[in-house]
Amino acid sequence: MRIAVDASGGEYAPNEIVKGAIKAAHEYDVEVALVGKKSLLHLIAGKHIKNLNLRIIGASQNIDFNEHPMEAIRKKPRSSIVIGINLLKEKKVDAFISAGNTGAVLCAALFGLGKFQGVERPALASIISLNRYSPALLLDAGANADCRPSHLFQFAQLGEIYVRNIFGIKSPRIGLLSNGTEETKGNRLIQESHQLIKKSSLNFIGNIEGTDLTQGKADVIITDGFTGNIVIKTVEGLGDSFIKVRSPDHSRHLRGRALLADVGLGFLVKSMDYSEYGGACLLGVKGNVIVSHGRSRAKAIKNAIGLAHRTAEVNLSQLISEVKYEQ
Amino acid sequence: MRIAVDASGGEYAPNEIVKGAIKAAHEYDVEVALVGKKSLLHLIAGKHIKNLNLRIIGASQNIDFNEHPMEAIRKKPRSSIVIGINLLKEKKVDAFISAGNTGAVLCAALFGLGKFQGVERPALASIISLNRYSPALLLDAGANADCRPSHLFQFAQLGEIYVRNIFGIKSPRIGLLSNGTEETKGNRLIQESHQLIKKSSLNFIGNIEGTDLTQGKADVIITDGFTGNIVIKTVEGLGDSFIKVRSPDHSRHLRGRALLADVGLGFLVKSMDYSEYGGACLLGVKGNVIVSHGRSRAKAIKNAIGLAHRTAEVNLSQLISEVKYEQ
Repeated sequence: MRIAVDASGGEYAPNEIVKGAIKAAHEYDVEVALVGKKSLLHLIAGKHIKNLNLRIIGASQNIDFNEHPMEAIRKKPRSSIVIGINLLKEKKVDAFISAGNTGAVLCAALFGLGKFQGVERPALASIISLNRYSPALLLDAGANADCRPSHLFQFAQLGEIYVRNIFGIKSPRIGLLSNGTEETKGNRLIQESHQLIKKSSLNFIGNIEGTDLTQGKADVIITDGFTGNIVIKTVEGLGDSFIKVRSPDHSRHLRGRALLADVGLGFLVKSMDYSEYGGACLLGVKGNVIVSHGRSRAKAIKNAIGLAHRTAEVNLSQLISEVKYEQ
Repeated sequence: MRIAVDASGGEYAPNEIVKGAIKAAHEYDVEVALVGKKSLLHLIAGKHIKNLNLRIIGASQNIDFNEHPMEAIRKKPRSSIVIGINLLKEKKVDAFISAGNTGAVLCAALFGLGKFQGVERPALASIISLNRYSPALLLDAGANADCRPSHLFQFAQLGEIYVRNIFGIKSPRIGLLSNGTEETKGNRLIQESHQLIKKSSLNFIGNIEGTDLTQGKADVIITDGFTGNIVIKTVEGLGDSFIKVRSPDHSRHLRGRALLADVGLGFLVKSMDYSEYGGACLLGVKGNVIVSHGRSRAKAIKNAIGLAHRTAEVNLSQLISEVKYEQ
């Protein structure tokens, strides 16, 4: 299994990305290709290359967070993002991970790899774990701010394949995130999407509400990318408040994580701390692409490589290609 | 100050509603009119009527949670919701509170009281307190699932009046909830709303993200009622998880609330526990209407009466009527 990692992407690149790659190379049966500034990467990771399954692939350009995605990928063919996507396209790697400019990764994947036939809009699928029973997949987590009902129906199909194959759930329960459980509730997009998904053969449990996210009602949570992004980030913000809790006397280090575990809410940490699951899969493009959080540190990158390993192992993008998508 | 309370509305009506009204009549300088089944209310609250500023107003009908709002208010003119709104219309009370069928309260208010000139859509304004600095007002929290940019602009105007007069903040910071801070981010609704609000004289700080909700960046958070409802309920669901935390040995009672206070996150309880602020104000209708949570118990009702007292004290609906709303 070969995984390419964007070593120039993210707030803590390249140091934390390299650290995460080294950890992953120890932990998983993978070859990690670090894509970035060659000399710098040799300096940081050089001594590990002989002993570990690590490679360095040069990328002389870098795309910043504030660059316009489309322009950036056109102007910078030697950037780590474009080179990483090309490695995937040429089947030189089985998955690509980037914590860099999300828009640029989406554009590069969309135009470099293309979508599978019938897929209208690729979606970002994030794992959230807000209940003590099992994690759930939320999509779209932010790739498509404006959606049509057919997009949401396809997200349901894509999410079902993911959860069935990655989580191993036979008949995933599909829930449509809305402002009420009755099928008449929701905005127009949700009301129309409800009718589309209801007619399908998917295990559709109907609308779910914000309060249901902590109840473990659905395995796949369908939403447009605008709402999905706001939900994910609201949860992340609350998570930050908890994780940064200090001891009352301020004498000890941050202890929020331990505190939550103490009271039996350890499962919440996983969701509220983006580093636990490493990143979101971009479903619908021809290749396994994982978008990590811009603030990813070593642990997040290691976990993203673990997730990439799993998606490549089951050949997720191949499974996605085999489904007929209705439009 | 006279406040009417729907004694038949909510999961724990009438007992908890009456308890809350009694507490409020002790605490605030208000006359509370309980609207509901006369004989039952006399039985429960009768002995308090002499000593406290309490009245009972008969309402022989009741609107259930699952009834169609519009049909229900037409068919049940003797329901507590319709009678309560009529008391407000006839200026017999200064505010009306209901924990009953939200849709029915909205319809009754909209058709019974009417909107102020220029207001296109009344909005539900919820107080949220996700940071240690100050609470914020989020609107629309669920009255309008589908919105136009002009609606969101008016929500900003309505929210500004509320926060300036109820919280006493001179120039409230208005933030537009989006999936990114740049003004090009958001779905079409948000992008267009951004340009509208930007051109106004409001203290507009631009887009804010889900993670910013815990950072205290904005005093007024503008969103459509679909997204707002999902955010509020996601936070509520997480709050339930925390508040229901038991001691590790299960020997003691629920201790989540105390635990959060212990670690300096007491402020989060206020937002994650809907009973703390009592309810959401319906802004834009001709009268002070407060919609409480269907699961409201005595504390929530007492706090809703406190909020109603404050809105009536500053004459919020009068202040709202004095503004010119652009369309």
